[in-house]
This record gives sequence, structure tokens and C-alpha cells, in this order.
Amino acid sequence: MTQGSVASGSRFLRACRGEAVETTPVWLMRQAGRYLPEYRELHEKYGFLTLVKTPELAAEVTLQPLRRFPLDAAVLFADILLPLEAMGLALRYEPGSGPIIEEPVRERRDVERLRTPPAREALGYVLEAARAVRAELAARPAAEGGPVPLIGFAGGPFTLASYAVEGGGSRDHRRTKALLWRAPDLWALLMERLTAVTVDYLAAQVEAGAQALQLFDSWAGALAPEDYRRSVLPWTRRIAEAVAGLRTPEGEPVPLIHFAMPSAGLLELVAEAGGDVIGLDWRLDLGWARGRLGPGRAVQGNLDPLLLAEAPRSLLEARVAAILEAAGPRGHVFNLGHGVDPATPPEHVAWLVEAVHRLGRRGGPEE
Amino acid sequence: MTQGSVASGSRFLRACRGEAVETTPVWLMRQAGRYLPEYRELHEKYGFLTLVKTPELAAEVTLQPLRRFPLDAAVLFADILLPLEAMGLALRYEPGSGPIIEEPVRERRDVERLRTPPAREALGYVLEAARAVRAELAARPAAEGGPVPLIGFAGGPFTLASYAVEGGGSRDHRRTKALLWRAPDLWALLMERLTAVTVDYLAAQVEAGAQALQLFDSWAGALAPEDYRRSVLPWTRRIAEAVAGLRTPEGEPVPLIHFAMPSAGLLELVAEAGGDVIGLDWRLDLGWARGRLGPGRAVQGNLDPLLLAEAPRSLLEARVAAILEAAGPRGHVFNLGHGVDPATPPEHVAWLVEAVHRLGRRGGPEE
Repeated sequence: MTQGSVASGSRFLRACRGEAVETTPVWLMRQAGRYLPEYRELHEKYGFLTLVKTPELAAEVTLQPLRRFPLDAAVLFADILLPLEAMGLALRYEPGSGPIIEEPVRERRDVERLRTPPAREALGYVLEAARAVRAELAARPAAEGGPVPLIGFAGGPFTLASYAVEGGGSRDHRRTKALLWRAPDLWALLMERLTAVTVDYLAAQVEAGAQALQLFDSWAGALAPEDYRRSVLPWTRRIAEAVAGLRTPEGEPVPLIHFAMPSAGLLELVAEAGGDVIGLDWRLDLGWARGRLGPGRAVQGNLDPLLLAEAPRSLLEARVAAILEAAGPRGHVFNLGHGVDPATPPEHVAWLVEAVHRLGRRGGPEE
Repeated sequence: MTQGSVASGSRFLRACRGEAVETTPVWLMRQAGRYLPEYRELHEKYGFLTLVKTPELAAEVTLQPLRRFPLDAAVLFADILLPLEAMGLALRYEPGSGPIIEEPVRERRDVERLRTPPAREALGYVLEAARAVRAELAARPAAEGGPVPLIGFAGGPFTLASYAVEGGGSRDHRRTKALLWRAPDLWALLMERLTAVTVDYLAAQVEAGAQALQLFDSWAGALAPEDYRRSVLPWTRRIAEAVAGLRTPEGEPVPLIHFAMPSAGLLELVAEAGGDVIGLDWRLDLGWARGRLGPGRAVQGNLDPLLLAEAPRSLLEARVAAILEAAGPRGHVFNLGHGVDPATPPEHVAWLVEAVHRLGRRGGPEE
């Protein structure tokens, strides 16, 4: 280990690489979000898209949970659909419902019309937010877990494609599946464009300060494994290979967390596509997943988010301990199995972060 | 094999028992339903609850798909929530939305108020429909796959509990999970009552003519495996044990198909709870599931229902063949991974039944 390197010293980054850690690192998907009153205040004042598109506000929201809790990583506050907007699909967020894409992608001409502008031009506001967060993180006093790194992210290609084709959220992804079954060439063209934009966007995030990346292919679990293998895996593999070649401005490699949901039926295929860390949702046993993935692969997860919101503390503590026990001391990043539930009391999050650090400590420092 | 026995001669029942079959049997979840114009006609005329509660109509709907397609089993047209109504929970079906339970179960007094009337009294209309279907099936000329048996069913205890507690369908089952985490004694009391009613209901269906049973715990897959193990498995096991002790009036054992969804993360636990046949949804590889369940357990599934509705025939044929290949010649009941999608053209179902019988045939008859 290069003890002198700032990035290498972070507990989170060491866990991603399967290296020894003094205790298990923890961050939470949607840790910057609606369960925090200070987030709701900004959200009410500015609205979601303004928060996301104003670098100072996005940076502020990113840092809000870090001011409250000793989390082991910051995760950029952004939205997985921003690249779709950059590609020319007008995006609208209706309060109460999910995002809406006014003119969904249905025909060849819709796909051909999709632009692939460089992220530096089209998504500069995200990159500016990343730079601001990174600067603020660097200015913080050193924490026990080392400097807190910044995680960047992008939506996985199936999830982006589904939003683009369905025109918003979907329970069954019918049109998306129909497209990939009936028009595989057109599907490939769509995936090419999404992949190109995603690879460029992730590289730009790293250039702007992200030290790890997560690929959220949250909806890929709606596919039969054979459909995932044929229609998604080749493109996620390309993204994973591109990320493997990235280095931070400090010369560090950039771990990739690969998350699909539900993960159980796709586990080996998601791992085959790539990722240093495989994200696990709560509907599988983490120890079982480890057994299937083998010792060389780190895992992230996997507490039921509702358990954090609703369960009594004694049960919660037993489950956190069971996950840590199943994961073992190396190659585990503690997280929920999905995003923080908006009804979660912030003090539950405070307790969880403390509990993971307390229960994840096994003997003295191993370094 | 008792060649003389009517029930034993059925291809579907032989496959459930892991015995040799001349080709793979096939039936479809929701094979009696909205994709059939003759069903929609009756539905429009009478409404759902009248269809379900009028034995002649329920029998007619059950038999509709059998008149069109050489399916290997009939499945009773009923609703998993009928026992909840029998227990005292008023049920309403809103067109467009799902079922609504007016006064959901939230407190101890709500659970204590739940009645456990014998199915013969409270659900007599279902049993009468079963008798009518069975009589009509017995009068049919013998088919190549032997006499067509009748499958009865009930909702699994978690799924029933979730409807009762949430007051209808739910995406996250928050109140149900909160109940089982915060008030395990009350949860146990609720599960006791649901289990008692279910065991009695299934036995009554067998007495009325059902020759196999399916337990639909469709929502149990929303639970972390540890929650399923503690809060569901003990009761589903009790149901499975009760079914194992049942005999038809002809003295035949009654195979149980156990279906939870998504199945991948819970597979071993569902099998541990019981069932001669484990139902598989489409989001896992059937061959992989077989490997995990071992050769002694039959499986049912697992084509994506949207594939049947939307995919071109050449792709469909390749996927059907792949499922049959992965399953091997014994202990497989072909089915979709979930119910028939209402937009499925009936001619696709006709094609599928023919294709399974054609592709599932391996050499001459093995008996």
C-alpha cells in the first residue's frame, strides 16, 4: 500500500480493492436526499432540476450528509437521466410522479436523432459540482477512515434505454423489451450511443474529481438472464473496461461498483460484465452472493432500506452484525440494498454509520 | 406407475412427481383470463366478483382455455383474496386499480377479529366450481397426455398478510414489514389464522376435485432471505406438510407447486419450506435453479410472459427450446414465469402449447 497517497488511504477505496481496513466502510445510496430536512428545505425552495443543475447547490446537497454523519464516501448529487437530456430528450419532473420524457425513443429516426455531445459541454454543471465537492472534501480535517473520497455515477445502459423508450418509469419495461426482441439492430444502435455518452461522462467525472464510480443498472433485473447476456452485458462490459483504464489526476485507478436489481438471478452475469465491487440488493443473502462471486470480488450492500426506516434497533443491530459477519473483514462496502427510504429518521442513519464502524472493527488495525 | 389410475395417467401429474413423460406438460398461470375475448365478454357482462362467486361462471371461465388449447392442466378460476373476505375483510375491486380491503389489519384487535370459518361454509362457491370443472374434465375424451387434471390454489401467507395489512396492493410492503419487525407476536397470530384458513381451504379443494395445488406467495420475494426464513417459512412449511398428507377421493397424493417471486434470492428457502414442484419466475436461469435445487425436486417455469406477448416467433422458439433443454426430460412443468399478459394474442398461446409438446418430445415414449 502506498501510505503516502491520499486516495489510497481512504478506507472506502481500500475496501473496494479488497485491501485490509480497520473497520468496514459505509455509505448509503441516496444518502443526499429527501430524508434530510436540510435537503427538503433546498428542494422546496429551488425544485429538483435547479438543485441538480446549479453546481453550488448540487455540491451543497452532496455534502449535507457528510456534515451530519462520518460516512466513508460522498456520492455526487445528480440524476441518472441527465445524460438523456444532454442527448436531446426533453426531461420533466412531475411532483409526485417520476421523471417524464416528452418524446420517447420509439423508431429508428428517434435513435438516429440522439446526440452524443461531450460531457464537458453538455453536462458541465455536474463536473463543476464534482470539482467543488472534491475541493471541500480535501479541505476537511483528516478523519479516522482517511480522506473521504467522492463517488461519481451513471445509469446503466438498460436503465437509461428503458427510460428513453418508455418515456418514464415502467413496471414491466414492455416497449423496451419489445424493441430489443424485435429490432436488435436498432437496440444495438441505441446502446452504442448510450454507452458512448456514458463512457465519456464517467471519464469526465473522474477528471473533475471522482475517485470511484457506480454504474446503476437498477432495472436490468427485470430481464431474463439470457436477455441480459445478449442485450445488455456487451455494453456494460465496454463501460467497465473503459473505467478500468481510467486514472485520477493523482494517478490512482478508479474502482467501479456495478449494481443491478434484483441482483440474485443475474449475479454471475453482472460480475462477468465487470466491476471491482458488485452491488447487492437486500433480496439475497450476502454470504451466498460472496460464495458465488468468489473471493476476488468485493461486494457492496445489502440491508433492506425499510429495515433502517422501520425496524426496532435491536433487530437492526442483529441484521447489521449478520451482514458484516457474512461479508468477512475484506472486500465489503456496507450499504443499503437500495436507496435510503425518504421516511427514514436521520438519527437512524447516524446510528447505522456508528454501528457499522463499531461492529465492523475486528481486532486492532490490520495495516 | 399405476397405469390403471386415471390421475396417475396425467402427464402433468407424472411430471410433478419426477416420473417419465412422453413430452413436457404445459399450463399457464392466468390461462383463464383477460387475454381471451370470451373471458372479456363474460367479465364485461358480470364483473369480476360475480364471475368468481357464481360456480357455473367460474367453471365456464376455468374451461375456456381448455376448449382452445391442448393444455395439460386446468387451473381453477378464483382469486387469492377470497379467503380474506371469508375471514371478515370486505373486499372491493376497482376497475383499473387492484383489489381494495376497506378496513385493513393494523392492530391486535383487527387480527383477533379475523374469523376462521370452514371453507365448506364460507367458500362453498369455489368448491362447487371445482366439482363442476372436475365433472366436465372427466367427461372429455381422453387426450394424448392422459386425463387433464385440475389444479387448485391459494395465496401464500405473506402475500395474504400483505394484502390484509396494506389494504391492497403495495410496492414496498412497508406496513407489513413494519408489523413483522415490530410486533412478531401479533404477526405470528396473523400468520396462524391465515395458515389455518389456507390449510382447510386447500383440503376442501382437494375434496371437491383438485388433483394438484399451487401456493402463490407471489410477494414473498420482497423480503430479505432472513425475514423470509423467520417470518414466513415456518407457516408455509406447515401448509406444505398438510398438503403432503392429503389424498384425492381416488386415493392419490396431491403434488404442491410452491411459487414465490422473485424466486432467485429465496430459492433454497422456498424449497426448504416445501413443495414437490418449485415455481420459478423468468428472472433466473432454470438450469441454474435446477442445479441449486438438486435432482429430486421438480420445477415449473419460466418463460418471460412479455416474451410470449411481444417477441417474434423465431426468438420465442429458441427460448422455449433453451428452457426445455435446461430442464431436461423429467420433473419439469412448462409455464410462464408469471401470469399470461392480458395483451397476449391467443394464437401465441396456441403456438406455445404446440411448441412445448413438439420440442419437449425426446425420442419415443419412455414408459
